[in-house]
Amino acid sequence: MSYFSEATSAETVNDRIGVATDPRLRQVMTSLVNHLHAFIKDVTLTEAEWETAISFLTRTGQICTDTRQEFILLSDALGVSMLVDAVNNRVPAGATDSTVFGPFHVDGAPELPLGTCISLDGKGEICLYEGRVLDLNGAPIANALVDVWSDNADGFYDVQQPDLQPKWNNRGVFRTGPDGAYAFRGIKPVSYPIPDDGPVGQMLGALGRHPWRPAHMHFRVTAPGHARLITHIFVSGDAYLTSDAVFGVKASLIADFRPVQSPTEQWHAAFNFVLRPTCTTA
Amino acid sequence: MSYFSEATSAETVNDRIGVATDPRLRQVMTSLVNHLHAFIKDVTLTEAEWETAISFLTRTGQICTDTRQEFILLSDALGVSMLVDAVNNRVPAGATDSTVFGPFHVDGAPELPLGTCISLDGKGEICLYEGRVLDLNGAPIANALVDVWSDNADGFYDVQQPDLQPKWNNRGVFRTGPDGAYAFRGIKPVSYPIPDDGPVGQMLGALGRHPWRPAHMHFRVTAPGHARLITHIFVSGDAYLTSDAVFGVKASLIADFRPVQSPTEQWHAAFNFVLRPTCTTA
Repeated sequence: MSYFSEATSAETVNDRIGVATDPRLRQVMTSLVNHLHAFIKDVTLTEAEWETAISFLTRTGQICTDTRQEFILLSDALGVSMLVDAVNNRVPAGATDSTVFGPFHVDGAPELPLGTCISLDGKGEICLYEGRVLDLNGAPIANALVDVWSDNADGFYDVQQPDLQPKWNNRGVFRTGPDGAYAFRGIKPVSYPIPDDGPVGQMLGALGRHPWRPAHMHFRVTAPGHARLITHIFVSGDAYLTSDAVFGVKASLIADFRPVQSPTEQWHAAFNFVLRPTCTTA
Repeated sequence: MSYFSEATSAETVNDRIGVATDPRLRQVMTSLVNHLHAFIKDVTLTEAEWETAISFLTRTGQICTDTRQEFILLSDALGVSMLVDAVNNRVPAGATDSTVFGPFHVDGAPELPLGTCISLDGKGEICLYEGRVLDLNGAPIANALVDVWSDNADGFYDVQQPDLQPKWNNRGVFRTGPDGAYAFRGIKPVSYPIPDDGPVGQMLGALGRHPWRPAHMHFRVTAPGHARLITHIFVSGDAYLTSDAVFGVKASLIADFRPVQSPTEQWHAAFNFVLRPTCTTA
């Protein structure tokens, strides 16, 4: 063994890992220590900056509650969430791209008949969403579950306003028919800022970044034999498409929202989802 | 601008930094994002591992209190604290090496006459610590302040047992005389585990590492015109010298603790501190 030195700092730390340690944990922690030490050396991190980092991380943990996850916001704001999604969901040509899951999904939303409107508070402009769930060969996937959620017309998810009724506002699950088709109504979503009154908001401010996300409808599409797809569709023309605070936008996920004349909706958005088979990657 | 992609992930995040951003903050954050993204790509971090990391960081923040700083423990256990110390305190040949400050220092300990015993609870074996504070030329530094602190005979610092009296147990400040000499009595410190009932303890366990630190007396030595020295002296022969949980040991900081026959102490440790001038580095 050797005592700690600047030159061999990471090796000294990694050499301490026990022989019986899980090989994957060893691999992950060794790489983490290598990169963390390289970062400190690259910038010659000062003691005052280290203290700022300790304080920042502590405050980030302490602001977390059952309904607020500031470390996920941090991961989102640094592009980490998108990168983890990217390296785990490389899709073959033709399959629909994924994007961040986000912290606002809730399991257990009601399964509703096709065409039902998930906006229950009477606010916002209604959009008819429709399309099909297909496999890579273009064949329809029946009985796929299409779990959807969005913010309300004020830019908040229901879990951010737990005292507001009705329950399950702007959430629902739809099951595709034999033709793979889904359809539902919901609001044309609005852009909103990620919570920016905590450490992550302070970080964005110091970096000259705004906290806004472009308007989007969330989708989680699952079907037996196919890889789960977690994605959004974004509203074409949104002012924040090119500066999403969490880097979630992909060109392939921007949908054309067209105004329509209808007694039941003011907008129409068509979008097909193409799933890849389980366990395939690009 | 470009939308997010796996290939250009870090560049996309860093390109978002505003033009008016403080240059140093830009440098630090750009390097941090580069290394963080490289780590994720190196190990192809899974979504489950990302969730584990989010949970770990959140729990690390939430266990912090006024008297417990789990993120400093994490920094210590990953060698980060020692590395930050190393890159900021490169000393010229002949100057005393630094080591980690640790989370247990308290400002405001009483200044005491040379020779006073700082162990106030009557427990443990007493050691006479003495030596001189010198400059790089070997000249004595008068009026240097030697701030010392250690655990008690049970392995706890007083701040970890806030209900125990007397106050300032095992802490004191001493001022060197015209000959640069300091002297005080305190316990021969004992090895102790860093707090291991939280996330950092779980991490150490998973890595097959123990939480113990070898016995040491803390010193913070300050004198006008000289760089502040933060260091320990370690007790020779300690079982954990080669496996300090926080990597604090340097060979130059191991002192010879000799048993003595004296009515006032059972041990003697001699150690000189050599300070470098302000603003010099190796």
